[in-house]
Amino acid sequence: MMSRTLCAELPAAAGRPVTLAGWIHRRRQLAAVTFVVIRDRTGQSQVVVTDPAVREQVSALPEETAVRVTGTALANPKAPGGVEVVEPSIHPLCAPARQQPVDLWRPTLRATLPTVLDHAGLTWRHPGRQAVWRIAAASLAGFREHLDGNGFTEVATPKIVGQSTESGANVFPLDYFGSTAYLAQSPQLYKQMLVGVFERVYEIGPVFRAEPHDTARHLAQYTSLDAEFGFVTDHRDVIELLRGTLAAMVERIAERAGASVEMLGARLPVVPERIPVLHFRAALELVGAAPDEPDLAPEHERFLGEWAKTTHDSDFLAVEGYPAVKRPFYTHPQPDDPRWTNSFDLLFRGLELVTGGQRLHNHADYLAALTARGQDPADYGPYLAAMEYGMPPHGGFALGLERWVARLLEIENIRYTTLFPRDLHRLQP
Amino acid sequence: MMSRTLCAELPAAAGRPVTLAGWIHRRRQLAAVTFVVIRDRTGQSQVVVTDPAVREQVSALPEETAVRVTGTALANPKAPGGVEVVEPSIHPLCAPARQQPVDLWRPTLRATLPTVLDHAGLTWRHPGRQAVWRIAAASLAGFREHLDGNGFTEVATPKIVGQSTESGANVFPLDYFGSTAYLAQSPQLYKQMLVGVFERVYEIGPVFRAEPHDTARHLAQYTSLDAEFGFVTDHRDVIELLRGTLAAMVERIAERAGASVEMLGARLPVVPERIPVLHFRAALELVGAAPDEPDLAPEHERFLGEWAKTTHDSDFLAVEGYPAVKRPFYTHPQPDDPRWTNSFDLLFRGLELVTGGQRLHNHADYLAALTARGQDPADYGPYLAAMEYGMPPHGGFALGLERWVARLLEIENIRYTTLFPRDLHRLQP
Repeated sequence: MMSRTLCAELPAAAGRPVTLAGWIHRRRQLAAVTFVVIRDRTGQSQVVVTDPAVREQVSALPEETAVRVTGTALANPKAPGGVEVVEPSIHPLCAPARQQPVDLWRPTLRATLPTVLDHAGLTWRHPGRQAVWRIAAASLAGFREHLDGNGFTEVATPKIVGQSTESGANVFPLDYFGSTAYLAQSPQLYKQMLVGVFERVYEIGPVFRAEPHDTARHLAQYTSLDAEFGFVTDHRDVIELLRGTLAAMVERIAERAGASVEMLGARLPVVPERIPVLHFRAALELVGAAPDEPDLAPEHERFLGEWAKTTHDSDFLAVEGYPAVKRPFYTHPQPDDPRWTNSFDLLFRGLELVTGGQRLHNHADYLAALTARGQDPADYGPYLAAMEYGMPPHGGFALGLERWVARLLEIENIRYTTLFPRDLHRLQP
Repeated sequence: MMSRTLCAELPAAAGRPVTLAGWIHRRRQLAAVTFVVIRDRTGQSQVVVTDPAVREQVSALPEETAVRVTGTALANPKAPGGVEVVEPSIHPLCAPARQQPVDLWRPTLRATLPTVLDHAGLTWRHPGRQAVWRIAAASLAGFREHLDGNGFTEVATPKIVGQSTESGANVFPLDYFGSTAYLAQSPQLYKQMLVGVFERVYEIGPVFRAEPHDTARHLAQYTSLDAEFGFVTDHRDVIELLRGTLAAMVERIAERAGASVEMLGARLPVVPERIPVLHFRAALELVGAAPDEPDLAPEHERFLGEWAKTTHDSDFLAVEGYPAVKRPFYTHPQPDDPRWTNSFDLLFRGLELVTGGQRLHNHADYLAALTARGQDPADYGPYLAAMEYGMPPHGGFALGLERWVARLLEIENIRYTTLFPRDLHRLQP
């Protein structure tokens, strides 16, 4: 392994010989000196080149060329981080980089969305882009950490399934050794079956939706953070689990990606001790919608988000009791009034972020629910069998990583939050 | 949330009122007493029923029915764990469970492979089956923990891709909004591109192979543990990273799933301070194969596994230098002799577990390698572009979760290690 000093370690190395390794982030050639900024996974360091031979060498090493730099770390209050590298020798680690379609060294990436996406392998190198993903990755770590600490078992479920999970719409069909299969739209049925095994399970993985619409909020593949657990009283237990999970995600972001948050000027939400909960019926009333509206419109959600902020000082609001007609067959009804359900949506800053709830757990209730919807129970054989073999009251939730990051960072188009997005028109890179 | 005492907590609750929640794992009806074993995610507890009315109730609650049991924890040296629950009242949490096709309470699950798989949602409830997956889940945690601690960033890459990753064989084609796409066989090209961004990346996710062969070692979907990192000297750095990762996985298994290891009577390997490395040429000689053999046969791998155990007391052996003709186009040649490569296979107890190595990092080398193989560079546009924009020397490895668990636990058929396996014939459950 190359022995190297990381950029973040440079300030502690003042006065000593060091070797940096990274990319040439920027060169600035002045009359008597060339400044070279080196970028590595921990940050950036300034290298000061005065030797004419090395200056000439640098002039032939374009930005993004990978290099090793050996020199002396020298304290200089005017240098970024207070320490710079002087009297460097520079060793290129690859052929000189080709001229890039965008300037990665500019504080703001000046490029259109198609350019950013077409050149994703390059544009993600921009520190501001990196920061977005670092926050996403920290979110994943926080999710796992909280659930690991609460007796959950990580699972891995099939992404090729024999029937569409929840509805026939928006699925990708696939030729599976001569028969038709589908890409999984969610791990829903599997995570429920696994509650019968491990009680508490979670999965982070790709899910697939053949979204025929080209919107800023939908992707053909996204990362779903799923949790499901047994022995609940009702969906309020799920909201409480979700609350703790979100708090851990935010905490982990602050801890692991604090510099990224700062770079992007993002506001991390405070996850309240108790997330305010509003019944769907009350939500309709509050937004002035007709009492028989089956769903909340985006402008309703925005209004409710503001209401939660104003009246509860909360970025989060759970709307419970969604009408049964708008929820999937496995949704548990509200015990005292089956027009409503023990399900909820979590709004984050006025946008739907999470769907969750209590599920049915008795086989007979599944048969009735499927039959009432005109669906054939035979399509759900092994799943329904699990419900016959003794399943406790259970529930769970699913959270889309990209939507979370987009809302957190106020990014308009979800494609900016995905390393290599897939949509109606995009299959590359 | 139901207030409950977990089975594992029962010994500490002796003398106090308790509420258990779990599944009826077994009932034993004797002349004057019925013993009920309750199973939850932490283990099992014995409940002693003497009240005739409760005994009658229990006789109508078959094994696997989910229940809540309220009673008093009483020390009894003869009870499992030293404490049992007496004077219970029992509250069923679901309809009585249907008669099961297998007895989950038997120490060994007596069922054929098809029965185990057809009823996976049920058969995974068997404590011996649960133990297998708990070891798998602990392995995932150890992998992440080690890489998180070494500056790696978790990434999520597309599972729907525009071209087959490595070769045209064994891919699942897919209709993608009217054009043909494929399920990703590996995150290889993406993780390499992301080395250009984050230097060090890992991903745990599903990969897909349309394996036309029905073997005990192959699945159509498996869980790939991928790592890739930049600024390496050569593949030896990759072997060293792998060594530390495996050590962390084993440590995490011992820590988190020690009871499962014990239940299965498994031997955890000691990961040596340095994994022995043998050049492919020397390996051929050792096994008595012809010097122009391009690959190692399974019996060769077994022989080498025994050799590593005998001469190095190691369950692991890295074979480096595989012939260029047998390795993918992105493989870095051995600098002093390009017939060989800076790649390796890691054998674990005589079975190939991991493939890894150093990759090419200069664009011109990619063009030459693809052209030499008769492949069209145009098929790899964005990937090759990343190599033009400055990529450091880098390498990585991929490890199949199921193969790891199977070898660790000496499970003959990899299907036993997968929650819901997919193969040539199986798309359910």
